[in-house]
Amino acid sequence: MSLPDTLTADLRSLLGGRFSDRAADRDHHAGTEAHHMPAPPDAVAWPITTEDVVAILRLCHAARVPVVAHGAGSSLEGNVSAVQGGLSLDLTRMDRILRVSAEDLDCTVEAGVTREALNAGLRDSGLFFPIDPGANATLGGMAATRASGTNAVRYGTMRENVLSLTVVTADGRVIRTGGRARKSSAGYDLTRVFVGSEGTLGIITEVTLRPHGRPDTIRAAVCTFPDAASATRTAIEAIQIGLPLARLEYLDPGCIRAVNAFSHLAEAEADTLFVEFHGTQAGVAEQVEIFADLAGGNGGTAFRWAEREEERSRLWAARHSAYNATVNQRPGARGWATDVCVPVSALPGCIDEAKALLAGTRIPASIMGHVGDGNFHVVFSVDPASSGDLAEAARINDRLVRTALSVDGTCTGEHGVGLGKRKYMQAEHGEALLLMRSLKDAFDPLGLLNPGKIFPDPTEAAE
Amino acid sequence: MSLPDTLTADLRSLLGGRFSDRAADRDHHAGTEAHHMPAPPDAVAWPITTEDVVAILRLCHAARVPVVAHGAGSSLEGNVSAVQGGLSLDLTRMDRILRVSAEDLDCTVEAGVTREALNAGLRDSGLFFPIDPGANATLGGMAATRASGTNAVRYGTMRENVLSLTVVTADGRVIRTGGRARKSSAGYDLTRVFVGSEGTLGIITEVTLRPHGRPDTIRAAVCTFPDAASATRTAIEAIQIGLPLARLEYLDPGCIRAVNAFSHLAEAEADTLFVEFHGTQAGVAEQVEIFADLAGGNGGTAFRWAEREEERSRLWAARHSAYNATVNQRPGARGWATDVCVPVSALPGCIDEAKALLAGTRIPASIMGHVGDGNFHVVFSVDPASSGDLAEAARINDRLVRTALSVDGTCTGEHGVGLGKRKYMQAEHGEALLLMRSLKDAFDPLGLLNPGKIFPDPTEAAE
Repeated sequence: MSLPDTLTADLRSLLGGRFSDRAADRDHHAGTEAHHMPAPPDAVAWPITTEDVVAILRLCHAARVPVVAHGAGSSLEGNVSAVQGGLSLDLTRMDRILRVSAEDLDCTVEAGVTREALNAGLRDSGLFFPIDPGANATLGGMAATRASGTNAVRYGTMRENVLSLTVVTADGRVIRTGGRARKSSAGYDLTRVFVGSEGTLGIITEVTLRPHGRPDTIRAAVCTFPDAASATRTAIEAIQIGLPLARLEYLDPGCIRAVNAFSHLAEAEADTLFVEFHGTQAGVAEQVEIFADLAGGNGGTAFRWAEREEERSRLWAARHSAYNATVNQRPGARGWATDVCVPVSALPGCIDEAKALLAGTRIPASIMGHVGDGNFHVVFSVDPASSGDLAEAARINDRLVRTALSVDGTCTGEHGVGLGKRKYMQAEHGEALLLMRSLKDAFDPLGLLNPGKIFPDPTEAAE
Repeated sequence: MSLPDTLTADLRSLLGGRFSDRAADRDHHAGTEAHHMPAPPDAVAWPITTEDVVAILRLCHAARVPVVAHGAGSSLEGNVSAVQGGLSLDLTRMDRILRVSAEDLDCTVEAGVTREALNAGLRDSGLFFPIDPGANATLGGMAATRASGTNAVRYGTMRENVLSLTVVTADGRVIRTGGRARKSSAGYDLTRVFVGSEGTLGIITEVTLRPHGRPDTIRAAVCTFPDAASATRTAIEAIQIGLPLARLEYLDPGCIRAVNAFSHLAEAEADTLFVEFHGTQAGVAEQVEIFADLAGGNGGTAFRWAEREEERSRLWAARHSAYNATVNQRPGARGWATDVCVPVSALPGCIDEAKALLAGTRIPASIMGHVGDGNFHVVFSVDPASSGDLAEAARINDRLVRTALSVDGTCTGEHGVGLGKRKYMQAEHGEALLLMRSLKDAFDPLGLLNPGKIFPDPTEAAE
């Protein structure tokens, strides 16, 4: 497929070298970070201003051509693949930090700024932006996916940390979804409408965020448990007593084994919790003591605490490499990640089920979880050419999703729907899916924005 | 006006004594808590189940009759008045706490449960629900208004503390906006679409909330400052260093004077901060020390600290009576409250402007503010029969709203749009208002849910 000739000419004339329909560029925008089938766009555009985006969307709207917003391309559910062709709108060159207010604890960035670039830019202000999905994603992509990650247990997700957005609508109008007040009751919450909409309702071009003051004291620890239930019970108890955990991560023994091999470490291959506390010196000391008591009561041992940044980085290296370490257990493999999130009381049962399912498969896999939020992933290392691998991972994912929905959880805690979770939307939302559909139709009546995503594919078997 | 005869007969047959078109009942549902013109509905219905609400909405939808959801009736912007007649749907008899999970820190209540009833019901669980708008509002009303209040600086607003909702649509379908997972990326955030929608998109019948663990230690204090700027500077500094304030309230000398008269107290008539800390014994002790240092550096004196519950209650009595004390300075008066919210760095300038405006008016008035959020109110005690009073309060409100919008703030931090803020929606939202309109049309195509609210009245002069 290719774009209509006149549209190609118009985009070339508008963007010059910032437009391409070469195969290499199209293939780089096919949404293939994980196991989903590549679906390259017909062409790629690299806007550098909101005005560029407006002009591009007007042209595509007039030509009835799909537009798929694209950030770092690190999403895992085929969220940015161009399943109906059209134009990939690559926002990574909109990478300016526009404004930082240390007084108001807010800042505004262009959509293509990555979280690492933002944190580098915030360094002198005494602030940091805590949402950390692992990959060095763009802030626009993180907003569109309602991303979260290891710090969400304390700081919330993108839902809580986006103050407002600049959005270009399907027909090329620019709106701001809100101002800079920390709270408002002035009408519908358009900010939250666009956060998590995966590029299907409008194109996010600027993001106003709520960074946080960098804590005085940070202490991290690793400890091991006799089994997964002891680790998750510790997590539940810590949440219940309101311990202000900054991070609380679970890794199963298989995950530690993969990390050891990948990073040449020698961590004990056990059910492991990684924990971190942020606060004042006295506050953190107190939290550490309480947590150590809870963990000890559940058989936690082999505590290693770290306060200095290098020590903490070394400690967290295992956690941060967990995804890549798991995927790279086989040459040429791709990642395949489940992403259920459940009420924390249901977490031990769900993780036990995941362990039992993994015991019966030969695909290398790890369990890693943001257990303070009830969110965990099984990451498989699949051979993308093996239909057996893909079917097996899909079968286990399906079992976990059904269990999560049966306890009033969700099929995706942070990866988004993309292509991979479309078939669960009806089971999870029921009648509410009709309202989502009517919202989509109201904001994008021609269905041009990231088509084929979020809503069930009528050709796919219903679950 | 009255309802169509067949509708009246159908509602009577459905609800028996839980339907009324008597004048006294209608007048009690006319939305007159504050200064807005009474607008009674044609009749009132008291559903006791979601199924009742479904049946009522189906009947009203078929008859093309407006439906106005009504909780405690404590909203201040005419949010529940029936400006186009129709049926007031009084949800206060849906008052059951359906479920509390101390393990998951969540609970589900019917929409008519009040926040005081909820907190009484939570007492044995070790949890409490922090959102406190002052009035003993219903949780359904608080969700619909995106309410907040004194604890929002630490615990957030209803936006952050509603996990999911059960909603009946305009045509009588029941949906759930989400499950019980603490986070989800599974599609559009319908929960946040309905939070703050003021009954214009659907009728909230059940609310799943995130109560919090009751803190070990609570300490509150009052201290006075030489002027408003010193008090607000203290607030800004505390926010900037990330001090975990649970409450931070400012009262002006006029407000203290009104409170002294109303409650027979003898507080110093000065610019005053009320502050509260929640946490562990050591954590709170540390916070208290830091705050006392900051306040002292800005000329704060006359600290009174309280830890035991009775002492704290006595301390907060002044703050809690501030609205009524102000309004009751004149017999027969009504309240008229402004509600701007601005970036905290802009707060000192805005409060100074409010003080200057009040110096030029003879209407009794107080300034009281949730200054940790940048939100403050000027409360006037107006004679509802005096067009001069109403015009004067409207003029001052208008000035404050314009200033707030000029610093990227909002016309309403927590009271909602209702009737009173409709005329500022265009100035605040610009093109985004068209998206809000399309959302309204998508969810309520016949315009039957709380008509005349939120969107600008074409007959009212644009601002």
